[in-house]
Amino acid sequence: MAIEFLKGHGTQNDFVLLPDPSGRLELTPGRVAALCDRQRGLGADGVLRVARAEALGLPSAGEWFMDYRNADGSVAEMCGNGMRVFARYLVDAGLVDGREFVVGSRAGDRPVVVHPDGSVTVEMGPAAITGASVSIVDGRHFSGVAVNVGNPHLVSIVDEDVRELDLGLPPRYDTDFFPEGVNLEFVNPLDDGLLRMRVYERGVGETRSCGTGTVAAVAAALHQAGTDTGESIVEIPGGRVTVVLRRGQSTLTGPAEFVARGELYEAWWDAQQ
Amino acid sequence: MAIEFLKGHGTQNDFVLLPDPSGRLELTPGRVAALCDRQRGLGADGVLRVARAEALGLPSAGEWFMDYRNADGSVAEMCGNGMRVFARYLVDAGLVDGREFVVGSRAGDRPVVVHPDGSVTVEMGPAAITGASVSIVDGRHFSGVAVNVGNPHLVSIVDEDVRELDLGLPPRYDTDFFPEGVNLEFVNPLDDGLLRMRVYERGVGETRSCGTGTVAAVAAALHQAGTDTGESIVEIPGGRVTVVLRRGQSTLTGPAEFVARGELYEAWWDAQQ
Repeated sequence: MAIEFLKGHGTQNDFVLLPDPSGRLELTPGRVAALCDRQRGLGADGVLRVARAEALGLPSAGEWFMDYRNADGSVAEMCGNGMRVFARYLVDAGLVDGREFVVGSRAGDRPVVVHPDGSVTVEMGPAAITGASVSIVDGRHFSGVAVNVGNPHLVSIVDEDVRELDLGLPPRYDTDFFPEGVNLEFVNPLDDGLLRMRVYERGVGETRSCGTGTVAAVAAALHQAGTDTGESIVEIPGGRVTVVLRRGQSTLTGPAEFVARGELYEAWWDAQQ
Repeated sequence: MAIEFLKGHGTQNDFVLLPDPSGRLELTPGRVAALCDRQRGLGADGVLRVARAEALGLPSAGEWFMDYRNADGSVAEMCGNGMRVFARYLVDAGLVDGREFVVGSRAGDRPVVVHPDGSVTVEMGPAAITGASVSIVDGRHFSGVAVNVGNPHLVSIVDEDVRELDLGLPPRYDTDFFPEGVNLEFVNPLDDGLLRMRVYERGVGETRSCGTGTVAAVAAALHQAGTDTGESIVEIPGGRVTVVLRRGQSTLTGPAEFVARGELYEAWWDAQQ
């Protein structure tokens, strides 16, 4: 049995997608970790298994379920950048009727729209302002707005150019306020309403993109302007996305790109545990 | 035109292999860099184009030429781990008669033997002892044997467990002795003649494997024992290889593994410069 795959990315958050409609692949943590290993495998930030919700025995109002795994092999609830790649695949492969549908995930069903240019809009749920806090990065203090988008963020809107920040060393933050860690965003508002952002993801380090982080950044910027409704383009190192907030509910629109498709060698797959 | 590829590795030094017998691919530095980019491309330490020497207009006594490119898009002369992957591909794809043949490279022709188990022996040329020097790693001094295997190495045979060394920060070395930089190897001789090695590659940092580094390590160990002839298995983080030295000439034998094969999306390829 050949194991089909695709490799793609959403604003340079990259994935190996495994089409597996009937959920037959034995996707062990060891195999996921080997597949995501950038030297001995194919390499990716995570694996997206494309399976029917019914085949996995998981609840969804939609036909397809995004079975997402982290690069270390663990199961993850949801990934906004991954959802765009997943949704575009379903349309390109002719597995759904139309361009607006619902995809199941462990964090619940996500309505998506796949646009004619290949970009995808994903409903990201509520973005809640939870307070204010401070981080220490590169020896300096940054005050910020705390935002919860299913996961915790601390957004600092700063005057200095965020491209000059050194995010190489782990930042410090208030571990009483964020007992489960926090993702840190550093944001420059630019002239035309654009936000330029860099992000330090908890447990990972700086990344080229973080979907919930861009939603948090826009929520914080709107909060500072005294509103919870508005729209911004966010420029991150991996590209550009558009965030819309309406009364605290969010959507994220961005690109989904495919690089390659093919088959994994059975001998390699079978050798992984 | 579909662009075929394979992804594989030799002791976890990983490559994208591009079968291109007639040398028609426009392999620009930008495309190579995008292909090797681990987020927005397929991801690899380098690209191996498989082309006929005649088609490239490059000199070789062999039919096939390993057109090797670094991950930054620049042309490179030779890569021992890549040569194993390249040679195994030629045999698996039925592009050569027999299992012993010569492959062209920019560093000259390399005789290879592809064994029935898929491992490959590559003639690596001379390993010359050039003196002694010292490096400073993790605040401590390590004396070593300088070895040239086409590129410069400083091999330190140490008592402490090399697995405990912190190779995270750039080591210091004698820049007068090594004006073009140096690769540093740290070696534990183990009971059964095995050498355990870690390597810090110039311009890269610690890697899981370095073919010429393993040759240098065995040459240094033999030199300290007063000879230039012998054989050792070297255990590196990426696996195990066997090095044979005979009067200063070397061969390296190790695994070559394929993970996946497929096609690059034309739209993606065409969008890269």
